[in-house]
Amino acid sequence: MLVLYHHPFSPASRFARLVLAEYEVHVDPRLEQPWERRREFLLVNPAGTVPVVVENDGPAICGAGVLMEYLDETRGYMTPEKRLLPDNAGRRAEVRRLVDWFLTKFDNEVVGPFVREKVYKQEMPREAGGGAPDSTMLRAARANMGSHLRYIGYLAASRRWLGGDRLSFADFAAAAELSCADYLGEVPWDTDENAKAWYARMKSRPSFRPLLAEKIRGMKPSASYEDLDF
Amino acid sequence: MLVLYHHPFSPASRFARLVLAEYEVHVDPRLEQPWERRREFLLVNPAGTVPVVVENDGPAICGAGVLMEYLDETRGYMTPEKRLLPDNAGRRAEVRRLVDWFLTKFDNEVVGPFVREKVYKQEMPREAGGGAPDSTMLRAARANMGSHLRYIGYLAASRRWLGGDRLSFADFAAAAELSCADYLGEVPWDTDENAKAWYARMKSRPSFRPLLAEKIRGMKPSASYEDLDF
Repeated sequence: MLVLYHHPFSPASRFARLVLAEYEVHVDPRLEQPWERRREFLLVNPAGTVPVVVENDGPAICGAGVLMEYLDETRGYMTPEKRLLPDNAGRRAEVRRLVDWFLTKFDNEVVGPFVREKVYKQEMPREAGGGAPDSTMLRAARANMGSHLRYIGYLAASRRWLGGDRLSFADFAAAAELSCADYLGEVPWDTDENAKAWYARMKSRPSFRPLLAEKIRGMKPSASYEDLDF
Repeated sequence: MLVLYHHPFSPASRFARLVLAEYEVHVDPRLEQPWERRREFLLVNPAGTVPVVVENDGPAICGAGVLMEYLDETRGYMTPEKRLLPDNAGRRAEVRRLVDWFLTKFDNEVVGPFVREKVYKQEMPREAGGGAPDSTMLRAARANMGSHLRYIGYLAASRRWLGGDRLSFADFAAAAELSCADYLGEVPWDTDENAKAWYARMKSRPSFRPLLAEKIRGMKPSASYEDLDF
């Protein structure tokens, strides 16, 4: 049994859910609100961040990047037809570069601020930092979205998938981040046809269905969110 | 031939230099000032960050985490006696968790602010953000140092090395970060004997020597920096 500690609106948690579903791993999900800094959870992951995976009585697998390597070593390597990392060390480095780009840089500059201002701050008590969204942060994130979406479009136009010839962890890292921004109506899809066409391919995968069916209490998804022909 | 783009005071670059030296890889070092955002360098790594490694005419290996996996795949795996990752997937996950803890969390909360305020801002032109150190940032970093040093001491006391029974990438990630703070006189060694004893072991490794011999122009290292019996 594999327990997944996650938050439905954490992009890195969505990455974990997507790639676990791609490997058809049965998951026991546990909702975690990272800002609560729950004592029992800090004993599992001292950093207090999600996602975290615990398989049987094994050690905690903390963070999306660590989980990616763990899944490759325990599943991907043995099932070459499903493997989400390339066969060659140089090409694997390119996939890892992009996973880090999306889950760190794209998250810090664009999607993280959207999620924090529009979702987390509504769920957090005021003493933990909750409250109204900061419009300066939202404006900065919107300004940064353009160049990031163009980069995704550029990659999608120059390769079959974002990380190379084959579907890889890089596609799921980008798609997990974009899915959060898309729910919030913050992806200007019409500005990049290549990015849009690639995301339509990602969205139609069975692993994506549970994410598209989910709703946050009190916040409707954007018109494009569930639509496979957006 | 392996080209390493680095900055002498970037902790992640120091991590790269240490682990390349441990694997006895001959390196052609190129100094990069990341804040210059040099056009030729952005073509190598669009994120503009160091370290980056290019081996022969291979693809760019961007970032300390990606380099760690690349070295394990191209060197460590074939030389088990020198390997800096454990043999078991669960224990590898623990080493990777700690590498991320040190190079991201410890860096964001402690060492990064020290380096930015005390070194980078002196080297940067004013229009790129250079200037006097921000004392509020330095105070916050000093306040955070205590709990991070205790965590390193706790790991050192409960295991032979920080990441487990054997020397691993986790030790070099922590040591690379600490070496930058130590140069600046910002490590209160006397507050944690276990952390200090572990760092003394790291410092005495041949891979550390070039770092200890280096000086920044106009800034003398702290009294403890070069001393192996500090």
